[in-house]
Amino acid sequence: MAENSGKPNYLVGVDLGGTKIRATVFSASLEARGTAKLSTKPQRGAEAVIERVARAVREAVDEADLTFKQVRGVGIGAPGTVDGKTGEVIFAPNLDWHDVPLKQLLEKHLDVPVFVENDCNAAALGVHVVELKSKPRNMLGIFVGTGIGGGLIVNGELYGGFGHAAGEIGHMVIDVGGPKCGCGRKGCLEALAGRGAIFRQILEAVQEGQKTVLTEMLGPDLKDMRSGDLRKALRRGDKLVEKIVEDAAFHLGVAVGSLANILNPEVIVLGGGVMEALADEMLSVIVETAKDYAMPGAMNDVEVIASALGDEAAATGGAVLARQLLK
Amino acid sequence: MAENSGKPNYLVGVDLGGTKIRATVFSASLEARGTAKLSTKPQRGAEAVIERVARAVREAVDEADLTFKQVRGVGIGAPGTVDGKTGEVIFAPNLDWHDVPLKQLLEKHLDVPVFVENDCNAAALGVHVVELKSKPRNMLGIFVGTGIGGGLIVNGELYGGFGHAAGEIGHMVIDVGGPKCGCGRKGCLEALAGRGAIFRQILEAVQEGQKTVLTEMLGPDLKDMRSGDLRKALRRGDKLVEKIVEDAAFHLGVAVGSLANILNPEVIVLGGGVMEALADEMLSVIVETAKDYAMPGAMNDVEVIASALGDEAAATGGAVLARQLLK
Repeated sequence: MAENSGKPNYLVGVDLGGTKIRATVFSASLEARGTAKLSTKPQRGAEAVIERVARAVREAVDEADLTFKQVRGVGIGAPGTVDGKTGEVIFAPNLDWHDVPLKQLLEKHLDVPVFVENDCNAAALGVHVVELKSKPRNMLGIFVGTGIGGGLIVNGELYGGFGHAAGEIGHMVIDVGGPKCGCGRKGCLEALAGRGAIFRQILEAVQEGQKTVLTEMLGPDLKDMRSGDLRKALRRGDKLVEKIVEDAAFHLGVAVGSLANILNPEVIVLGGGVMEALADEMLSVIVETAKDYAMPGAMNDVEVIASALGDEAAATGGAVLARQLLK
Repeated sequence: MAENSGKPNYLVGVDLGGTKIRATVFSASLEARGTAKLSTKPQRGAEAVIERVARAVREAVDEADLTFKQVRGVGIGAPGTVDGKTGEVIFAPNLDWHDVPLKQLLEKHLDVPVFVENDCNAAALGVHVVELKSKPRNMLGIFVGTGIGGGLIVNGELYGGFGHAAGEIGHMVIDVGGPKCGCGRKGCLEALAGRGAIFRQILEAVQEGQKTVLTEMLGPDLKDMRSGDLRKALRRGDKLVEKIVEDAAFHLGVAVGSLANILNPEVIVLGGGVMEALADEMLSVIVETAKDYAMPGAMNDVEVIASALGDEAAATGGAVLARQLLK
């Protein structure tokens, strides 16, 4: 096989997040071969973060029992607005980056071609190319983590819009005048259904004296709460967590219904850390609500599924991107 | 010129609405040559309406001093869910139509090829091809009449989505739990900013005893109120109408901002009867609000404009459609 010939046939996909960097090596046929994770440490500045990305890439290659000479290219999903052509990160609030020439700087470190995409766009691409056997022409990916992001596949290709800013599903307004969002506005989907919103509502309820098993599990200030803790609380029959998670699922369902009305995609994929932990609890509420809010026809034969790629979606999409652009 | 040779070179575009049918004859280069209008009379049933469409088409041809032999094809925008391939109207609530084979029945009457599209999709196509000289790759058309509809141009082409149901902008939820919409749900954009919503709010305010010059103009029950009456009231400094129209413009702006976040189109065009009457009053509020609600980058260099095609947008798009599909 070609991939054993010593020619550079491997691709590395990177998910550059605000707290951690994940690099995964993929074969030419997009099978994962090895992964490395590092903390991001954005407070050290862009140059230091990019050095850490390079280190994660090399560690993943080592983990896969390969040498770096076998790597053909690297694709990165970055958390913010990206210029796909120049590979510049225009604005990434979680990293406090403005106009960072990520492609150029990382190519200096690695000496292979580097391609940059928004992380949720990359994740949508990864799901579309690697996970979905049906290869739908139109797909919407919604990724629910601390925040909520999205990626659109239109006519079989990643859709970036005019200024490569499309897909900001988390900042569609669902409840005008509603709870304040991290973006400064009010009533965005992210402020109603992201992990940040779910955690905030639980904390507020605990401060008001409501009971939850989470305080037994994590202490009264709920330090280090994770999505997995919510799953454990739900399995123990925690009514408070159930109500708040259902409410988030309801708002996600309203958004999915509205997006079906606007875009009528063939497949809607839900991913990200919250969905990975809570898909069993949330998906049925999301689908039921979406069908309630969709116009006749807008959800006919439309599949709504939870992605199985989990945390690997953006890195997988990075590798897909590199493979596409190296052709 | 070819169009004087007697060969069938003319196209007829039809806007089939719930209350009126408008047919316009266009030259091969899409210049309007003559128009005819007829009331729709949907209560007489689909067969009778289709006969009226055929009559409007023939009257428009006569109005343009042409003979029907010079007509190459007809394109119709219909108010509902349409199967573009079969030319069937699947569901049109304003006409009370279910599964009406419009293309087939109208071709029997006219004996020229007929093409069918959703009316707002047709209007978006008309604006894109005939009105916008810049030919943006991605455009969103929002048409504000009694209801609110939309049409998307993606990569230079009309985007229908998986089941040809995309573009239902009026039924994106902006205010979950908000006012009831004609579709049966709550908080849809249409329930906050369509002509129906504006008129309902004015009527409610009058019933509560609030003052407006509209009651002087139209009588206490505001019978036969039209968008143009609102413009007259605004020019006379009517505070109630000003507040309600501004509120509708605010909600349209929230939607435009959200849609910029989702789709980041190059151009956003606002059309329809309400915009035709009130663009001067509404557009600046819409644009300002949209910029407030858009993420950094999503509205950069994005044009938001009012269409100059007015009532002719859907008929124009019908002719464009026929020209495209007859090629």
